[in-house]
Amino acid sequence: MLIVLKQDATQKEIDRVIEKINSLDLTPHISKGTQRTIITVIGDEDKIREQPLVIMPGVDYVQPIMQPYKLVSRAAHPENTVIKVGDALIGGNKLVLAAGPCSVEGEKEVIEHAKMAKKAGATLFRAGAFKPRTSPYSFQGFGAKGLEYLSAAKRETGLPIVTEIMDVRDVDLVCKHADILQVGTRNMSNFNLLKEVGRAKKPVILKRGMSATIVEFLMSAEYILSEGNHEVILCPRGIRTFEDITRNTLDAGVVPVIRDLSHLPVLCDPSHAMGITKYVTAAGLAYIAAGADGLLIEAHPEPENATSDGQQSLDYYGLVNLVGKLAKIAPAIGRDF
Amino acid sequence: MLIVLKQDATQKEIDRVIEKINSLDLTPHISKGTQRTIITVIGDEDKIREQPLVIMPGVDYVQPIMQPYKLVSRAAHPENTVIKVGDALIGGNKLVLAAGPCSVEGEKEVIEHAKMAKKAGATLFRAGAFKPRTSPYSFQGFGAKGLEYLSAAKRETGLPIVTEIMDVRDVDLVCKHADILQVGTRNMSNFNLLKEVGRAKKPVILKRGMSATIVEFLMSAEYILSEGNHEVILCPRGIRTFEDITRNTLDAGVVPVIRDLSHLPVLCDPSHAMGITKYVTAAGLAYIAAGADGLLIEAHPEPENATSDGQQSLDYYGLVNLVGKLAKIAPAIGRDF
Amino acid sequence: MLIVLKQDATQKEIDRVIEKINSLDLTPHISKGTQRTIITVIGDEDKIREQPLVIMPGVDYVQPIMQPYKLVSRAAHPENTVIKVGDALIGGNKLVLAAGPCSVEGEKEVIEHAKMAKKAGATLFRAGAFKPRTSPYSFQGFGAKGLEYLSAAKRETGLPIVTEIMDVRDVDLVCKHADILQVGTRNMSNFNLLKEVGRAKKPVILKRGMSATIVEFLMSAEYILSEGNHEVILCPRGIRTFEDITRNTLDAGVVPVIRDLSHLPVLCDPSHAMGITKYVTAAGLAYIAAGADGLLIEAHPEPENATSDGQQSLDYYGLVNLVGKLAKIAPAIGRDF
Amino acid sequence: MLIVLKQDATQKEIDRVIEKINSLDLTPHISKGTQRTIITVIGDEDKIREQPLVIMPGVDYVQPIMQPYKLVSRAAHPENTVIKVGDALIGGNKLVLAAGPCSVEGEKEVIEHAKMAKKAGATLFRAGAFKPRTSPYSFQGFGAKGLEYLSAAKRETGLPIVTEIMDVRDVDLVCKHADILQVGTRNMSNFNLLKEVGRAKKPVILKRGMSATIVEFLMSAEYILSEGNHEVILCPRGIRTFEDITRNTLDAGVVPVIRDLSHLPVLCDPSHAMGITKYVTAAGLAYIAAGADGLLIEAHPEPENATSDGQQSLDYYGLVNLVGKLAKIAPAIGRDF
Repeated sequence: MLIVLKQDATQKEIDRVIEKINSLDLTPHISKGTQRTIITVIGDEDKIREQPLVIMPGVDYVQPIMQPYKLVSRAAHPENTVIKVGDALIGGNKLVLAAGPCSVEGEKEVIEHAKMAKKAGATLFRAGAFKPRTSPYSFQGFGAKGLEYLSAAKRETGLPIVTEIMDVRDVDLVCKHADILQVGTRNMSNFNLLKEVGRAKKPVILKRGMSATIVEFLMSAEYILSEGNHEVILCPRGIRTFEDITRNTLDAGVVPVIRDLSHLPVLCDPSHAMGITKYVTAAGLAYIAAGADGLLIEAHPEPENATSDGQQSLDYYGLVNLVGKLAKIAPAIGRDF
Repeated sequence: MLIVLKQDATQKEIDRVIEKINSLDLTPHISKGTQRTIITVIGDEDKIREQPLVIMPGVDYVQPIMQPYKLVSRAAHPENTVIKVGDALIGGNKLVLAAGPCSVEGEKEVIEHAKMAKKAGATLFRAGAFKPRTSPYSFQGFGAKGLEYLSAAKRETGLPIVTEIMDVRDVDLVCKHADILQVGTRNMSNFNLLKEVGRAKKPVILKRGMSATIVEFLMSAEYILSEGNHEVILCPRGIRTFEDITRNTLDAGVVPVIRDLSHLPVLCDPSHAMGITKYVTAAGLAYIAAGADGLLIEAHPEPENATSDGQQSLDYYGLVNLVGKLAKIAPAIGRDF
Repeated sequence: MLIVLKQDATQKEIDRVIEKINSLDLTPHISKGTQRTIITVIGDEDKIREQPLVIMPGVDYVQPIMQPYKLVSRAAHPENTVIKVGDALIGGNKLVLAAGPCSVEGEKEVIEHAKMAKKAGATLFRAGAFKPRTSPYSFQGFGAKGLEYLSAAKRETGLPIVTEIMDVRDVDLVCKHADILQVGTRNMSNFNLLKEVGRAKKPVILKRGMSATIVEFLMSAEYILSEGNHEVILCPRGIRTFEDITRNTLDAGVVPVIRDLSHLPVLCDPSHAMGITKYVTAAGLAYIAAGADGLLIEAHPEPENATSDGQQSLDYYGLVNLVGKLAKIAPAIGRDF
Repeated sequence: MLIVLKQDATQKEIDRVIEKINSLDLTPHISKGTQRTIITVIGDEDKIREQPLVIMPGVDYVQPIMQPYKLVSRAAHPENTVIKVGDALIGGNKLVLAAGPCSVEGEKEVIEHAKMAKKAGATLFRAGAFKPRTSPYSFQGFGAKGLEYLSAAKRETGLPIVTEIMDVRDVDLVCKHADILQVGTRNMSNFNLLKEVGRAKKPVILKRGMSATIVEFLMSAEYILSEGNHEVILCPRGIRTFEDITRNTLDAGVVPVIRDLSHLPVLCDPSHAMGITKYVTAAGLAYIAAGADGLLIEAHPEPENATSDGQQSLDYYGLVNLVGKLAKIAPAIGRDF
């Protein structure tokens, strides 16, 4: 923690700050300049992080020095984490492709959609049974029944299932049908849900919140790891900015930053980042070139008739085209596919 | 819904769009210009809102015309909604002040804090028993025990209690102790929680999400109303922008917009908007001058020793000073206090 | 400057950083913690600010400690700066109102518009002869002729003239007709223009850039002061954020921050901040309640027929209504009007 | 233009809007729904774009239908524009690499830097003689002398020169030495400068403003084309968002959007987008994978000793490494290098 004193701070004020630091069993390092005094505190920054030192008389501002995340940090675990789900090794050298529709649309439908994903080359199948919708009047998903349809799709295709969990009360139920639990953008800071999936025995895909900083994103992952579940996959999916020509703003730049700061694997979702089918493939390639371990893609055999997110879904030919491009770009960046 | 066709759209493509609209039992109005054809669909826009018309061949883009909110709109309820809680009429002519610490810090403490709030002139007491914290290693609140302390504080002071609910499983418990349920920023899009508080028999303060648009904010309120609970109070509390000199960016400009679009009362939280004690009072006055019905203020007798948010809390004298300013500004803008 | 070393930094790497600091004639203060070494440099931070210390081996990150602005800071000039223009004392206790149309629309018109502004109670008249327009096909202003019309309006009404300068080549010309030079949002970082107006002998209204941080805003003012012109008025006018229901996002929260950091007066522009007539008055009151010294308002006798910005202009009755509200709120916040 | 009337609009109000549209020689198309009337105007939208119809009684809101750009649009020029500079064909199939230091640091230095860029494989050399700096106390560039040094560097290496122009008065001078004029981020909306470079006989690299929307970016290019200069290269370079862990937020997602909307070539600047050397290469590959025609890279033989931007500059080995990666990725995405 860095504590910058005001230019006109009195010695008495400075002494009170030092006393406060000592009372926390921390050691202040005092640097007196010609104009200002600065106090550096190193050691267990957690102890001091939430102390409102900034409002003590004489203090101008304070600045944390250490990052608040621990278990997710690369310092704590220098090797990349690799998570095995079915045949996929998420975070390994081979790129991973999860594909499927936004929503489970029925049993017959979801089996057909899973077959399409498999045929095109996906290694994971994604579809939502519980749907977080901005409007209470929109389709809210098939719920528990949708989960059973997903299990049927898995039996038919063998593809492991990625599906969203929205409610702390649904953890056991979703775990029965899903191979990977997805925590959505709107729940990235639903800390009670993070704790519950942290106690589950399934890998978790954690989507980045719409305006979450990278540090907040990592701290949400930290919640899951701190409960004992170390199989967390970080999922950038676009952020909210002033630009509204696309649904979100592609956040490909976070990929090298996350890989630098953390050991967790990174799957990215270009479908939500762009929100417009014709831009999804270019965005997906950008994520991959930036270092992602794979993609989550919304795909539907007839996007025009999709129950939700049709406007950003690839059809079968779009998916095959993307797979072809991934196959070409992978070796150029030292990956397999 | 406005459907703008591409300049080179063929008649066959246009016909297919018209057919699709007809198939939804809606009436297309076709405007042919020299360069483009435009189709306007008016009527039940919900039916068409989620149809991915944009990906039909020949379509350039689509644009909704009607807003998706209904019950919260001023069109649906031209009079201001006024919510009675204890002696406070939230949304009436008299400004409302809710004050209290960020966290419940113990039984004795919270009683003392409530007394301070009352003495300074607050009509509601706010404090958190359940705390959503960015870090799993931070103090997470006293939980159920904290709720009991709040009830004790109410018994001592008579001030109605505002406290946060974070978990769908806690609704009954929180309702036993709280007079107003607060749904926090991070849960503004936790739709299952919104549905649960929509079924509760208590007024709800809904805080704006960090990067929620006004329309999304209103849609989250719509979730609550659509479940039968019409006592919703909207709470702007700053938004996230590029500016980082303050904790958030004060969103005083939303107040006249919300009052124009909706009949719901508006209480604002300048403490979180600014995040720095010395700026809170000016920010609170700005919210009030913009038309807010009152304020939520973090206040603590000794901010330096607060368990959380001390850096943005007013002390007793700060609170009394704010009350004095509210008393002066209220008649100048045609309100009481 | 704070220099945080990596956990695994070697002594040799640390020594090289220390050597570098010594070579700049600065004194490093070294704090060794159990996990990390931190070096604090205090003194002339300008010397080190642009040194890319962050890329030296062993360095994790660097953090400036001192703010880069000097002349504009309150530390440099503890008293508020007050600027006299005509009868107005900008930054004094009395609130200032500048009003007028977006564009000069002709000689007869601008005289009429100035009369309207005066009659409603404005003390300064604002109108643009040079217009920065997003589209090259939009009306670009009357230019030099417009300046002459402004002088005519001043002769008729006695109101001092505020008008925009867009081009370094126009300084002499604009100074002949204007009492206050306005540097627009899009030119806040046009440093050559800032230098030129810094050499002019006229007060300058500096509008905040659309996404300028407060520090950048102050640094742009610093450019003007550093050339010798200390009569700078800071003008918040809304910022760009994710919210698009209004033209910009009202930045009322910057007012107390700027007043804390700087001695310069603050006039605010709620017309551009909101972009919609019906919200302008509430926004103006919010700026004033937050501590602004006055307002810049777009006003036109017939907004429907205004050449530009009619959608955010008050008409005469709107302006009179605003003046009435300012007259009431001023004493409530300890100001005159 | 779409004009949505209020639910309670009277026939008289509707008639007045229709009259206004007719008075502009445009044809209104009226669609009456059960709840609302909507008027669509198609034809020359420029005529109506700036009419403040929104404030006419009975009007709820208006919405433009057509984009305001013309010459830059792909509709106006379906083929990609290719610009020849030296041996480089910017916008052709072969990727282009411009590299060099942030600032011209002296004659000897800039020649050395150009040699380094050439040796590493760059086809254009970039360096700034005029430097827009946030602080008036920072190094402001070598100015006119710096331009001469750039000419010397060109004589030595044959590499065409890209350099920034900041001032309308410098156009002739900069044109004497530069092969491509660069308009910087801070001047993207300096419309007088855009007009001047629009009259110059040199290609222009136009950098995206920090918070410019894609439409505004294209409109700034439109300014240049509208003056007769059709050789404009669009340069995304990161945007400003809430995320501050990197200097800017990488805007790779704009590349497919710009390529869809416009025929102009796109060179991207990952150095400014990220602001941290170790992330530049991944960001550059992301831009390329998204469809960019090439990159602008800050490179310096000794970044630690660079006069400016050392913290985001690649050294020689970094540049060679990037070139190697571009050579591999180019064929994978159907390009040459």
